[in-house]
Amino acid sequence: MRIEVICTGDEVLTGKIVNTNFGYMAQKLEDVGLSVAWETTVGDDRANLLEAFRLAAARADAVIVNGGLGPTVDDLSQEIAAQAAGVELVLDEAWLARMESFFERRGRVMSANNRKQAMLPAGAEMLDNPIGTACGFAVTIGGARFFFTPGVPRELRRMLEEQIIPRLLAMAGAPGVIRLKRFQTYGLGESHVDQLLAGVEALAPDGSVKLGFRAHYPQIETKLTVRGADAAEVERRLAPVQDEVRRRLGNFILAEDDEILEGVIVARLRALHARLAIAETFTAGQIAARLAHLPSAEHVFCRAVVARDLSQIEAASGMEPTDAAITEAGAAGIARALRAHAGATHAMAALIDLDDAAAEGIDFGGTIWVAIATAEATEVRRARIAGGRDWLRLGAVELALDSLRRHLHGLPLRERTDFERT
Amino acid sequence: MRIEVICTGDEVLTGKIVNTNFGYMAQKLEDVGLSVAWETTVGDDRANLLEAFRLAAARADAVIVNGGLGPTVDDLSQEIAAQAAGVELVLDEAWLARMESFFERRGRVMSANNRKQAMLPAGAEMLDNPIGTACGFAVTIGGARFFFTPGVPRELRRMLEEQIIPRLLAMAGAPGVIRLKRFQTYGLGESHVDQLLAGVEALAPDGSVKLGFRAHYPQIETKLTVRGADAAEVERRLAPVQDEVRRRLGNFILAEDDEILEGVIVARLRALHARLAIAETFTAGQIAARLAHLPSAEHVFCRAVVARDLSQIEAASGMEPTDAAITEAGAAGIARALRAHAGATHAMAALIDLDDAAAEGIDFGGTIWVAIATAEATEVRRARIAGGRDWLRLGAVELALDSLRRHLHGLPLRERTDFERT
Repeated sequence: MRIEVICTGDEVLTGKIVNTNFGYMAQKLEDVGLSVAWETTVGDDRANLLEAFRLAAARADAVIVNGGLGPTVDDLSQEIAAQAAGVELVLDEAWLARMESFFERRGRVMSANNRKQAMLPAGAEMLDNPIGTACGFAVTIGGARFFFTPGVPRELRRMLEEQIIPRLLAMAGAPGVIRLKRFQTYGLGESHVDQLLAGVEALAPDGSVKLGFRAHYPQIETKLTVRGADAAEVERRLAPVQDEVRRRLGNFILAEDDEILEGVIVARLRALHARLAIAETFTAGQIAARLAHLPSAEHVFCRAVVARDLSQIEAASGMEPTDAAITEAGAAGIARALRAHAGATHAMAALIDLDDAAAEGIDFGGTIWVAIATAEATEVRRARIAGGRDWLRLGAVELALDSLRRHLHGLPLRERTDFERT
Repeated sequence: MRIEVICTGDEVLTGKIVNTNFGYMAQKLEDVGLSVAWETTVGDDRANLLEAFRLAAARADAVIVNGGLGPTVDDLSQEIAAQAAGVELVLDEAWLARMESFFERRGRVMSANNRKQAMLPAGAEMLDNPIGTACGFAVTIGGARFFFTPGVPRELRRMLEEQIIPRLLAMAGAPGVIRLKRFQTYGLGESHVDQLLAGVEALAPDGSVKLGFRAHYPQIETKLTVRGADAAEVERRLAPVQDEVRRRLGNFILAEDDEILEGVIVARLRALHARLAIAETFTAGQIAARLAHLPSAEHVFCRAVVARDLSQIEAASGMEPTDAAITEAGAAGIARALRAHAGATHAMAALIDLDDAAAEGIDFGGTIWVAIATAEATEVRRARIAGGRDWLRLGAVELALDSLRRHLHGLPLRERTDFERT
């Protein structure tokens, strides 16, 4: 089945806003085993919209159109859809009533131009939008089924998942249930993960499990797409493959499905009734900024101290000035002192010894010391990363957070990653 | 002149990477008075590429193709360009030599498949890529001039600016020189800026200056596109409009052209030989993380302390425990103590008094206290922002940074923004 996407709107076409809706739609379709073959972006222009609809109708089986369902005069999708389908626009009384109650619940009066949003091509199938006033709909134009969706990302996302993907899967004759299982890892490169997982798909019958990756340095996402007749069959097929992925990637798996590294850390700290303090240098507050804003972080995050100068870190950690250096002992000493001063159960110091700038060249980088202190002990992880300053900072933030995750789960801190030099 | 863009590559079409190249190109063209009329994305697929080239050739005067110039088998742009133009691929000896010296300078051996990158359609005009191995080129297909560009963003950007835009402007018969002047503001909404600047374009003759905006909350960018026969004429036309924009937007202008707010702050601190310390609460380290990573920030940034609990802030600022509250006096006291303890010339405390969560509703928000202490005095800015937690945090970070900019430049802190409630 050939699927195309048409994105509309002057704001997208002129680059005023970056089109993240398209990438989102393409990924969601990939996740259920469907693919986009062609994407077109046109502005709020009648002739170009009509031409785009006409071309897609001649090439595709299904077309998703995004945007142009709003109340203003430059929102043209319903009008051009009706024209392309050769039908009239008619008022959908049910949607009009829905919109009126939508405004009423918010204590606002619906303006006259919103009425336009209830004008749909005659015979269109309504696609529900439970969180907005733009009514989605489906119509047939030429040989293709067109699905019209709102430009507002959260409205699009919900409509795509609840209304459109089930219809596309039915059109594709795909089996009843598809499930996407995801694993996030830090420390392994994409080709290494690929190599470690060679052959896992064969643990499920008949290619019913498909393996894929998405790299966003420093993390890699491993995805298993599973098909089956029903939920029980999907789970049965997924189980051996999922177990094997967990076994092979081991401690490098930092989160599964919708979890994120920093969320895993905050949840674990809460479960342990722990309270965390952080000292950081070259990472410039980026470790703290990944954690401290999260919901419920206020219960576990007690203090972060950020400075390039170790004497500032010492002063803010209640230490007497020493000649602390960026070494194993220096990092451990700061973590211990900060822990005591902040009244925390856990303190992490992430210190980076940047190479001499004069020697900056292909091997430029830095040595990272991550120390984690508790009442019982202080553990230190050392790593060397080569690359420019931004790359080094990105890697150091992730290494520190992942070391903390490992510590909180009782896993070894010292497991070599693909990103470090000796 | 009708311009189209074709983006290629399975990674973009499947959403594995978000297509930021397109938005970048569209904006750059808008900035010089050109517009994209139609955009197409296709994968690494011969039939779809050929069809996309054929359709664009029939509709457009100029087409920019992005991607597919790499060394691997799925990079198909040169091959399909030659096929669409009805010519052979021929080896460009000059580019081959360039590539060989490119690898040699890096002490690497060129692999055999890179040779493919020097195969261009016969008669193609070479578009220089001084920073990569992908050779850009231009060919005529049907009625349109096609410009082929690399997918690597920094290579594309340079080629677009240096090679392609001048050729497009020449094709469009546009005057010799176009200049884009930009102003960044914080605190005014887009419609307010639009209203304040009504009529400024008329200060230049014959529509030679065009006004535009780009909103990326909480900042707004105001753009003046100026055309003229030569640089002197452009400057002459721009001068009165630019002066008037500066006069009307006044203290709200935080930066011009490529400057950014945090860069302006670091530069000003350096010029004053000042050293800054920061205490922040609900903003979760995001104020510090905007400044501390910048080049040369190590000379001006001495310490940041991040905590939700004021007693933690006090302890890390060398204060005795008090009953400090989130008030004007509380913020001022922390800023003064932190300044002394850190040995800084300037200290800023940004405290946020979040509304009672139980009352969360349409008016939920928080009160922000920003105190800036120096040896001479302590100034405090109060603001109230309504909205969800993320919105409030975003606004508070910007308000704090902008207050610091104003303070460092001797401007009033208390100028009401469009984003605050009473």
